[in-house]
Amino acid sequence: MDWQREQRTGVPEAVFCEHKDIRQIEAIIGEAQAARKRLLLTRLAGPVLEGLSPSSRGVLDYDQVSRTAILGNALPAVASGIGIIAAGTSDAAVALEAARTLAFAGHSPDLIVDVGVAGLWRLTGKLDRIRSFRLIIAVAGMEGALFSVLAGLVTAPVIAVPTSVGYGVARGGTVALNAALASCAPGVVVVNIDNGYGAAAAAIKILGLGQPTTAA
Amino acid sequence: MDWQREQRTGVPEAVFCEHKDIRQIEAIIGEAQAARKRLLLTRLAGPVLEGLSPSSRGVLDYDQVSRTAILGNALPAVASGIGIIAAGTSDAAVALEAARTLAFAGHSPDLIVDVGVAGLWRLTGKLDRIRSFRLIIAVAGMEGALFSVLAGLVTAPVIAVPTSVGYGVARGGTVALNAALASCAPGVVVVNIDNGYGAAAAAIKILGLGQPTTAA
Amino acid sequence: MDWQREQRTGVPEAVFCEHKDIRQIEAIIGEAQAARKRLLLTRLAGPVLEGLSPSSRGVLDYDQVSRTAILGNALPAVASGIGIIAAGTSDAAVALEAARTLAFAGHSPDLIVDVGVAGLWRLTGKLDRIRSFRLIIAVAGMEGALFSVLAGLVTAPVIAVPTSVGYGVARGGTVALNAALASCAPGVVVVNIDNGYGAAAAAIKILGLGQPTTAA
Amino acid sequence: MDWQREQRTGVPEAVFCEHKDIRQIEAIIGEAQAARKRLLLTRLAGPVLEGLSPSSRGVLDYDQVSRTAILGNALPAVASGIGIIAAGTSDAAVALEAARTLAFAGHSPDLIVDVGVAGLWRLTGKLDRIRSFRLIIAVAGMEGALFSVLAGLVTAPVIAVPTSVGYGVARGGTVALNAALASCAPGVVVVNIDNGYGAAAAAIKILGLGQPTTAA
Amino acid sequence: MDWQREQRTGVPEAVFCEHKDIRQIEAIIGEAQAARKRLLLTRLAGPVLEGLSPSSRGVLDYDQVSRTAILGNALPAVASGIGIIAAGTSDAAVALEAARTLAFAGHSPDLIVDVGVAGLWRLTGKLDRIRSFRLIIAVAGMEGALFSVLAGLVTAPVIAVPTSVGYGVARGGTVALNAALASCAPGVVVVNIDNGYGAAAAAIKILGLGQPTTAA
Amino acid sequence: MDWQREQRTGVPEAVFCEHKDIRQIEAIIGEAQAARKRLLLTRLAGPVLEGLSPSSRGVLDYDQVSRTAILGNALPAVASGIGIIAAGTSDAAVALEAARTLAFAGHSPDLIVDVGVAGLWRLTGKLDRIRSFRLIIAVAGMEGALFSVLAGLVTAPVIAVPTSVGYGVARGGTVALNAALASCAPGVVVVNIDNGYGAAAAAIKILGLGQPTTAA
Amino acid sequence: MDWQREQRTGVPEAVFCEHKDIRQIEAIIGEAQAARKRLLLTRLAGPVLEGLSPSSRGVLDYDQVSRTAILGNALPAVASGIGIIAAGTSDAAVALEAARTLAFAGHSPDLIVDVGVAGLWRLTGKLDRIRSFRLIIAVAGMEGALFSVLAGLVTAPVIAVPTSVGYGVARGGTVALNAALASCAPGVVVVNIDNGYGAAAAAIKILGLGQPTTAA
Amino acid sequence: MDWQREQRTGVPEAVFCEHKDIRQIEAIIGEAQAARKRLLLTRLAGPVLEGLSPSSRGVLDYDQVSRTAILGNALPAVASGIGIIAAGTSDAAVALEAARTLAFAGHSPDLIVDVGVAGLWRLTGKLDRIRSFRLIIAVAGMEGALFSVLAGLVTAPVIAVPTSVGYGVARGGTVALNAALASCAPGVVVVNIDNGYGAAAAAIKILGLGQPTTAA
Repeated sequence: MDWQREQRTGVPEAVFCEHKDIRQIEAIIGEAQAARKRLLLTRLAGPVLEGLSPSSRGVLDYDQVSRTAILGNALPAVASGIGIIAAGTSDAAVALEAARTLAFAGHSPDLIVDVGVAGLWRLTGKLDRIRSFRLIIAVAGMEGALFSVLAGLVTAPVIAVPTSVGYGVARGGTVALNAALASCAPGVVVVNIDNGYGAAAAAIKILGLGQPTTAA
Repeated sequence: MDWQREQRTGVPEAVFCEHKDIRQIEAIIGEAQAARKRLLLTRLAGPVLEGLSPSSRGVLDYDQVSRTAILGNALPAVASGIGIIAAGTSDAAVALEAARTLAFAGHSPDLIVDVGVAGLWRLTGKLDRIRSFRLIIAVAGMEGALFSVLAGLVTAPVIAVPTSVGYGVARGGTVALNAALASCAPGVVVVNIDNGYGAAAAAIKILGLGQPTTAA
Repeated sequence: MDWQREQRTGVPEAVFCEHKDIRQIEAIIGEAQAARKRLLLTRLAGPVLEGLSPSSRGVLDYDQVSRTAILGNALPAVASGIGIIAAGTSDAAVALEAARTLAFAGHSPDLIVDVGVAGLWRLTGKLDRIRSFRLIIAVAGMEGALFSVLAGLVTAPVIAVPTSVGYGVARGGTVALNAALASCAPGVVVVNIDNGYGAAAAAIKILGLGQPTTAA
Repeated sequence: MDWQREQRTGVPEAVFCEHKDIRQIEAIIGEAQAARKRLLLTRLAGPVLEGLSPSSRGVLDYDQVSRTAILGNALPAVASGIGIIAAGTSDAAVALEAARTLAFAGHSPDLIVDVGVAGLWRLTGKLDRIRSFRLIIAVAGMEGALFSVLAGLVTAPVIAVPTSVGYGVARGGTVALNAALASCAPGVVVVNIDNGYGAAAAAIKILGLGQPTTAA
Repeated sequence: MDWQREQRTGVPEAVFCEHKDIRQIEAIIGEAQAARKRLLLTRLAGPVLEGLSPSSRGVLDYDQVSRTAILGNALPAVASGIGIIAAGTSDAAVALEAARTLAFAGHSPDLIVDVGVAGLWRLTGKLDRIRSFRLIIAVAGMEGALFSVLAGLVTAPVIAVPTSVGYGVARGGTVALNAALASCAPGVVVVNIDNGYGAAAAAIKILGLGQPTTAA
Repeated sequence: MDWQREQRTGVPEAVFCEHKDIRQIEAIIGEAQAARKRLLLTRLAGPVLEGLSPSSRGVLDYDQVSRTAILGNALPAVASGIGIIAAGTSDAAVALEAARTLAFAGHSPDLIVDVGVAGLWRLTGKLDRIRSFRLIIAVAGMEGALFSVLAGLVTAPVIAVPTSVGYGVARGGTVALNAALASCAPGVVVVNIDNGYGAAAAAIKILGLGQPTTAA
Repeated sequence: MDWQREQRTGVPEAVFCEHKDIRQIEAIIGEAQAARKRLLLTRLAGPVLEGLSPSSRGVLDYDQVSRTAILGNALPAVASGIGIIAAGTSDAAVALEAARTLAFAGHSPDLIVDVGVAGLWRLTGKLDRIRSFRLIIAVAGMEGALFSVLAGLVTAPVIAVPTSVGYGVARGGTVALNAALASCAPGVVVVNIDNGYGAAAAAIKILGLGQPTTAA
Repeated sequence: MDWQREQRTGVPEAVFCEHKDIRQIEAIIGEAQAARKRLLLTRLAGPVLEGLSPSSRGVLDYDQVSRTAILGNALPAVASGIGIIAAGTSDAAVALEAARTLAFAGHSPDLIVDVGVAGLWRLTGKLDRIRSFRLIIAVAGMEGALFSVLAGLVTAPVIAVPTSVGYGVARGGTVALNAALASCAPGVVVVNIDNGYGAAAAAIKILGLGQPTTAA
């Protein structure tokens, strides 16, 4: 593990579990415990969690929807002005991965779900709350129209997280991704499909602007 | 030429000029004149028009922006409740191809340009006018968010025409096309990229619903 | 749920179940029952239905082929002149999703299956019946030649629904989709792959042309 | 040059000029003249032809539409029962490349242009003539529906030549190519986009079935 | 079923089972038995076969490797000079689908497996036998180099069947397909990926050249 | 023009000229002059500039490399801690588009060119300067390895701008774009290919965090 | 089997098991035993191994991570100066496939895992060891930045093996593959995604340069 | 310029001119002259060369076919056993770029053109000469079958250079590239499309194996 990453880049180390087998994950948890380090695990599927030894499983705070696990104590949560806005309930898993990553780093985001643009008044009805955010993480699949609509309404930076929610041409999330990249609203920045963790990591870096860090 | 197409399908025959050479276009114009038929020519590039013989060129009513030409008398225009809504001025060429096709068939559409969703109030400010349309042809390139936003606001059917306006991932119009197909707003129907003519043809068919035609 | 969608857009709200888990679907059914609303559920896979509580499952009218469920009373069916024409028996699931959506909204479509163009006389043999339709929903996978052939024969508008039926280059439905978009027959409009619901929603909007609705 | 190709494979050697410069083409013509060989040149653009020395240009029989040139005497033409059927006038260049290749090898094909499926009766009206062909080369761009319709109507083998005629999703010919490959009509075989030469070469091989050749 | 297809197109009707459910397949078998028709079923997966009723399963001659089933009596086999040449043992399933289709129509092909070009002498060592074929069906996945090498060595027409055997860039068979289409050896014709049935259907049509059929 | 955009979103309105003709651009400049507004024009090709009337051309401050023009007075430049880092000299046009956009909004960035990772010491030799930036705009084409390397070395947020510099698989910039999105270094955010303007707009929004704006 | 391959090409024959069934693999093992040949099997999935007869399974030396099996005696291992460098633990399976292939041929590589560029000092900290290698096999998924960074630091040839480790745009390994091909560092050569065997085979050929072989 | 690259990586620095303007190239030549360094320029188009100042142009040794220029004295050429084998004359430009790069570094390759696999005996007729090479650079476009055929015949390592020679599906070189990557012949390594320079750079690194270099 890259225990110095947080010092060097401002973002805490996390373990992406999707391509790792149970033995490898178990070893990493053990290593973190031995080094007395906190740890965030992402994309930890339910069956893989079940396959861990009870002692490993027991020390993890697991969230089923976002498939994230946290090892170690919670940090006191600070409301930093981050809003996470998801287009539909199907996007909740990705939105919560971002929320859990922020919480792991001590940020307490505000979460709004189900404001897709097909019912525009759901979005405009919450505009005052949305405009109060200092930074927005927008989460949407399908055609990803939410990104452009949001970015045209607020001064806060918008980090777009396209999701793989969709079918036909939208299967896998490429349409939402490209819609975010091609947005006619200037100032949208984008992360990989389903990458709630990456959006949160970027938000942490942005909010930490100007804060001195100890370079490795 | 398929002079019976109008009877058979309700849509007047048109000539797509992009892959035809000057000699072929000249021959078609001559054939139409001999048969005393009206004719719509689409995708007629300026240099090709210049290459036509003066006698052919002289009988055409040419529009530079939409690159369409009409041979024969204008029909009396009827305001049928069709609205054409384009996201930006760069989409005007495609919007006007639709408008000219409708005019050729005797329909007089209402045209609204530059209501992209990055400035949402430009759209919502015209909502009463937009809601008065019986049928909407929506024209947009880039990320094509206009299609979903519009379709969530009106009861009229929305025909989406994605355009090739864009760069990077949006080059060629595929992002706008896929956004229209993947729209989270139900009831959007779609035609090929830059196909203003096709959208107008569909509108004519839709407005002609229930009207008897003489089958060939 | 967006209970005002029908008023605002003319199309009843439906729940796309593919990316939702059992708990979320159960909650939506409960909400609809509490609000005394009718509800259409699409892409409700058999195993997910089995996972619902008996009380939720009991109030649903489920159709196995189209994987749709309806909550609430049936509307009296009106024959509105909509024809659904499917190329092969493998396309039946998508054709029936369209038919169920129409029925949910009170329309009774006429269904014709297995008229692929490889046996053209199966199509031409039914031409009188096909020409009597006011609006056609055409459903086809593979190379999607049905769309062009149909649209060249009728005056009714044709809504093309490409399906994911196919293998090799046609796997996933992209060939049928592109064939519909690139059709040489003017006036074909297209929805996303396998989107029987969307085609029906568009048909409802088109047939409702000129009918006043209560804008939200 | 591979002067033995005809003996070895039954197909005469041809020179594909698109990626060759004038000097290289000139050299090949000279080599053929020295060896007293007949030669077919394909994809010979007008400006390249103009760039050849007068002595080279003078010995070539050039056809502007198909961009083919023939060096050497014409063979006596035999009507072998090959029909070339093109969907539209825009496909004529590719259809004529096939026709010229066949003529170079001594076959005289029957050419039918402009029978696209959007006007089905144009095709069915010529069905007796079409059914008299022993082998069909079908040429179409756009959505390529012609391939399936034709193959469902005849017993003759159908060689599909997709063309790059089209725009939007059909730009470059991929839609027509995939439609041919995914055809629901069994027995369609396919060559590369715009490959009129290849279709003719295959036709020559097929008609030569059972004829002994001298293997190299 | 299209029981007249054989008369109309020279190719016997077959049932592609991949997208059909057990009930649909059972119905087709019943219909064929009632009409006293022979029937070929392709892509009939083992588990689907197991799901059929014993009476349906009992009348089928099933081949596990090619996943084909034949209903009805075998035709007397004629050695028509067709060679099926497969690059590797992994391509055997597709090669055998072609062989079974030919057998169903009364042709007895000669089958050669495992002559990939990475060991060229395996191919050249069989060249006399290969050159004796009147028509070749070549079956290969991966990079599909076999198609070009074969076509450069023989006068017989070559029908290329790309297979989905491969990984990385070759996953799904697109590389082999494109290699066949882009072959530098003239006269190769191509069918869809894994389409052994289609290659055999084309071969039957080609060998039937000049034979009169009863048009429907 | 959307003269309120700056108030509403914090980003000044700019005119993307690539898909607009000379007449349209001329009109926009006139409108801005009449409204006494400053204006940024991007993607203004040299020949288009030459085509403008002398009076329009005369009021523009044009930069040839970035193809940007500014109308109106320069703002006093503030060194806000933004670093623009470009991999190679071929990426200079995009880097300068970002720099000019920042200058238009009153920010004075620090520009470092030619630190591609193939010569890693060029990057590490400037590490102190790079680590002093509060925000980094990284510009790279080809394989885009710069994004990951940079983001692993600094705490500042990194906005990746992939460029269309490259050939073969890298033609058009998709490889660099995807490399940025798939970066193993957390916290990289991405804009569209060649979108120097968008990166600058995002940087302006990020640096303006917490500053009150007047919502429209 | 091609038992002469080693003589002819310098690379021992291996069996790619992914598309073969148990019966075919069993037959090959039997054939090798009968011919008293050593054999390498790659992509041999655990369940397939379990399905082999005990006698076949018993003679194999199986490695679970790389999914390779070796039949026959081990060769004495020679340290030939080959380094295998993998970006992350998720890439271990592919790195070990290369290592096992080398061991099968008598080479003993040096293996370094988890030196991804997001933590550059992990790589630079091992630079002396890395620079001592005569030949490097680099293994990476995601954005594949490792390839360019490595190749800019060493004189040894670098064989890049992209892996399918990644998600979103990186799913399947195409981004890593293209990054290797588009590398700005000259002298990187590339093999197919996940092709550890191919990289090892190339390394064996390269190290055998100048050594005489017995041509078949 | 990276004048230490040769020491650090064994490959001399070269300037890729495609995305650079005349002013930039002129500056690099001046810098090299001032530093008394030899220089290789690749992708230097004729019109760009013409645009250089006479003094710059005068010091360059320019080759029109490969579009390469060399500044500085020629090295004495050593025949190192490198063979460059190109499938067709259209591939000569890329083959010569490799040859010029090798010559710049003091290697004298052996060049064989026009041995495409469609005429296999042209290849096998030169097999003794081909088998005498220590290292082979294979250059081919279209379907790239040459790579597999060659690699199955020789023990020398094969570096495949796919070219953009082709049309239809092969346009741009992707088919040849993928054919090289998916080759069934083990040990083929691949560089980017048209990257003759990269293949030569890799060859230089491979031939320098074991030779000490001065690390920077």
